[in-house]
Amino acid sequence: MSEAPIIDCLQYTNWSEKIFREMQAGGVHGVHVTIAYHETFREMVLNLEQWNRWFEQYPDLIFLGKNGNDIRRAQAENRTAIFFGFQNPSPIEDDLGLIEICHTLGVRFMQLTYNNQSLLATGCYEEVDTGVTRFGRQVIAEMNRVGLVVDMSHSGDLSTLQAIEISERPIAITHANPSDWHPALRNKSDEVIKALTQSGGMMGFSLYPHHLKGKSACSLNDFCQMIAHAADRYGVEHFGIGSDLCQDQPDEIVTWMRNGRWSKKLDYGEGSAAAAGFPPELGWFDNNGHFSNISHGLGDVGFSSDEVSAIMGGNWLRFYEQSFEPEVK
Amino acid sequence: MSEAPIIDCLQYTNWSEKIFREMQAGGVHGVHVTIAYHETFREMVLNLEQWNRWFEQYPDLIFLGKNGNDIRRAQAENRTAIFFGFQNPSPIEDDLGLIEICHTLGVRFMQLTYNNQSLLATGCYEEVDTGVTRFGRQVIAEMNRVGLVVDMSHSGDLSTLQAIEISERPIAITHANPSDWHPALRNKSDEVIKALTQSGGMMGFSLYPHHLKGKSACSLNDFCQMIAHAADRYGVEHFGIGSDLCQDQPDEIVTWMRNGRWSKKLDYGEGSAAAAGFPPELGWFDNNGHFSNISHGLGDVGFSSDEVSAIMGGNWLRFYEQSFEPEVK
Repeated sequence: MSEAPIIDCLQYTNWSEKIFREMQAGGVHGVHVTIAYHETFREMVLNLEQWNRWFEQYPDLIFLGKNGNDIRRAQAENRTAIFFGFQNPSPIEDDLGLIEICHTLGVRFMQLTYNNQSLLATGCYEEVDTGVTRFGRQVIAEMNRVGLVVDMSHSGDLSTLQAIEISERPIAITHANPSDWHPALRNKSDEVIKALTQSGGMMGFSLYPHHLKGKSACSLNDFCQMIAHAADRYGVEHFGIGSDLCQDQPDEIVTWMRNGRWSKKLDYGEGSAAAAGFPPELGWFDNNGHFSNISHGLGDVGFSSDEVSAIMGGNWLRFYEQSFEPEVK
Repeated sequence: MSEAPIIDCLQYTNWSEKIFREMQAGGVHGVHVTIAYHETFREMVLNLEQWNRWFEQYPDLIFLGKNGNDIRRAQAENRTAIFFGFQNPSPIEDDLGLIEICHTLGVRFMQLTYNNQSLLATGCYEEVDTGVTRFGRQVIAEMNRVGLVVDMSHSGDLSTLQAIEISERPIAITHANPSDWHPALRNKSDEVIKALTQSGGMMGFSLYPHHLKGKSACSLNDFCQMIAHAADRYGVEHFGIGSDLCQDQPDEIVTWMRNGRWSKKLDYGEGSAAAAGFPPELGWFDNNGHFSNISHGLGDVGFSSDEVSAIMGGNWLRFYEQSFEPEVK
């Protein structure tokens, strides 16, 4: 068997040559990067254009990832395949036809909501979760058809359970942890994780301090113990990493992520007025050179070498291979 | 040698299942279709979405053509490959990054102007031709890089000569005729056709009545005699068909083509207030079943069978094979 890749299924770092070099040095073969929070279609295209310039400037370091084979290519060429995703469906506006357009442009993941109610479903911060909307049902069918993965990381439980049921292809929660380990609004209930994994879906464990027990003080061993419990309960084959790494971002960015253009009064999300910025980073994971810490930590809590490989990238690779091509009817 | 395909390098018909079936019945393997006259980027994407729906609805008849191989595929599968093009650069707005985005979405031809001055160059109806602009020079370099063909069908002579000079890859005049045969503003001078063909460029002969000697009364033999003279003078290998077929379009469309949103006072283009609509169609060429008339007409004026094949599609196929892939540096 060829060596398993390292895949991180969510990052939103402040991209630069420095970070691309850290990804190469850290042996990271695939990264799902966020290219939209609250952007319209046209604004999202501006972000794509910036990525196109980076692909042109740093061809030895990065390239656009379109399918599972591109992970193998990245391994062979010592580069990183970049997979695009939206954390909010704002770029498809109210237009079903934009889903195929976005897929053609390389987008491979789309969250149906980002904390708030969207045109498609309900976010995890709303008081009432109305489930998947009329438009949302059509969007899921179209995402299934073209090979764009439904991501429910920031959605409410009812919406998530319905999306799992409605989608004909397995869905993902790219970055979150079990809420029975740390009861953040963004973490996921036993019922949701059970439904997700039993339907063939994947979940990426988050290293964003607000999603961790003890937040920025969470230890590597605590994090890996959580993974061990999840693997025991739901099966190791359904899990990977979705670090939610926000390296080098100024605090204005978390304000944009939380408030977009929808709020005049500042919303602090998982923070507070007293701690409005990004939370302090973990000592053992604050850049793309630190994935080896996690591999070692997983070994230390008893995972076999094959299981470590599966969690660090093998499981996402299998999911990527099955998810990004148009549906064959 | 495998049989030569039939390629029409410009149509703007009112697309429907009927026309797709006529293309199949007529053995037309590749068509360059106009998807924008005055549209912004977002509006052009709406037109792409409509094509995506047709590709989904009529997979046995049409598919998106991306490169020369798709012509061969169309021949093998008895379908028509559809190649997208803009008659005006309005969809790239003032944004160089949109060129690669448009190429990724399948666009393969872009006119630098449509009759009027654009941000890139001067159209053939302006009094003063200032040549290729500062932005225009950068756009040509970027089009060369990604594999998007410069089309100067509606441009002024100076702009066209400069574009031929600036472009590192051969350019096209997809739909026009020699002006020494019929002196329409849209037809091309000896100087332009010489520069175009000597630089490896291609020209498609137009069947739009305003571009023909005698207009709608032009005979098949007249048309083919014109081709024979051009082939003698410039070399048969530089010519193909770009019919400018506008079948089934209502007259509002020619008003939109001519006026966009730039004119309150109606501009009649090549028409007049007394004949404001589309000109009457030719009896011997008014749909996609009529390409065989042209093949026979070319034989009748003395072209060999290989030369007829070259003009009907072989020359465009060679050009497509060389033009649509990113530049190799």
